[in-house]
Amino acid sequence: MSSGEDGGRITGIKSALRVIPNFPKPGIMFQDITTLLLDPKAFKDTVDLFVERYTNGNISVVAGIEARGFIFGPSIALAIGAKFVPLRKPKKLPGEVISEKYILEYGSDCLEMHVGAVKTGDRAIIVDDLIATGGTLCAAMNLLERAGAKVVECACVIEVPELKVLSS
Amino acid sequence: MSSGEDGGRITGIKSALRVIPNFPKPGIMFQDITTLLLDPKAFKDTVDLFVERYTNGNISVVAGIEARGFIFGPSIALAIGAKFVPLRKPKKLPGEVISEKYILEYGSDCLEMHVGAVKTGDRAIIVDDLIATGGTLCAAMNLLERAGAKVVECACVIEVPELKVLSS
Repeated sequence: MSSGEDGGRITGIKSALRVIPNFPKPGIMFQDITTLLLDPKAFKDTVDLFVERYTNGNISVVAGIEARGFIFGPSIALAIGAKFVPLRKPKKLPGEVISEKYILEYGSDCLEMHVGAVKTGDRAIIVDDLIATGGTLCAAMNLLERAGAKVVECACVIEVPELKVLSS
Repeated sequence: MSSGEDGGRITGIKSALRVIPNFPKPGIMFQDITTLLLDPKAFKDTVDLFVERYTNGNISVVAGIEARGFIFGPSIALAIGAKFVPLRKPKKLPGEVISEKYILEYGSDCLEMHVGAVKTGDRAIIVDDLIATGGTLCAAMNLLERAGAKVVECACVIEVPELKVLSS
């Protein structure tokens, strides 16, 4: 989210976030959104900014990445009248799934989506709390596009500008 | 949620749910809420029923249990102007936490909450998708009450009446 859209609200949102050094391991400055969730006005402003951005975008699907994407995505979906599609870690979704592996700094991980959750022609946004390298978001885009959806945009609360974002 | 509150909406919600047999293991009939999330009207009706129930309840905290409680809890919190507090699996929250273990059918698990997320005098509801034995919800209640909050109610979309609910 760029700061040109609404200076007053974004200042409040930024001041409601916090950074926890050395989590989950030494050297990482963890961007913590849980303090934002404790500030009802700042949390509402965050969701409202996304809703304003996507209300007239003809978006039919909001896909949220487990677990923090679940905190922001459903409220956006409800407000714009879109379906909410959870993208989950392996073996969490009970129905038939398609899977997409992605590379982490050490090792790899995987996202899954229910078969039938999106259809050809769906216009989707993908929601997560934070974009770092973009690896998880790229996997999410691949999942949605393999199922026939068009990914219009990825919507993240926080960008970590120090990290180089992968091109998708 | 009892069916006396709003027959029309609850009928629509029930028909948007599905059951997946033998997940995550043989013999378990898994109650799947992901199909509800694909039906914007039924999903909105679900959230609205909770919002109507709690709007005048002087609720200051909505606590959501990872991960499906994150899908319903934040929308309720935003609508009633309460804080949202995520209750997470171990080692997911970056700040200082308090923990509560609970017994599963096989083995045990643990929920964590950030220190400082709730205060003495907070009035809380706990949100999850489903209540089965109630073991996870009891652990969540203990966490909130150890931190000084009063748990007013647990709000679940689905009750599994075949299972005996633990008294708390």
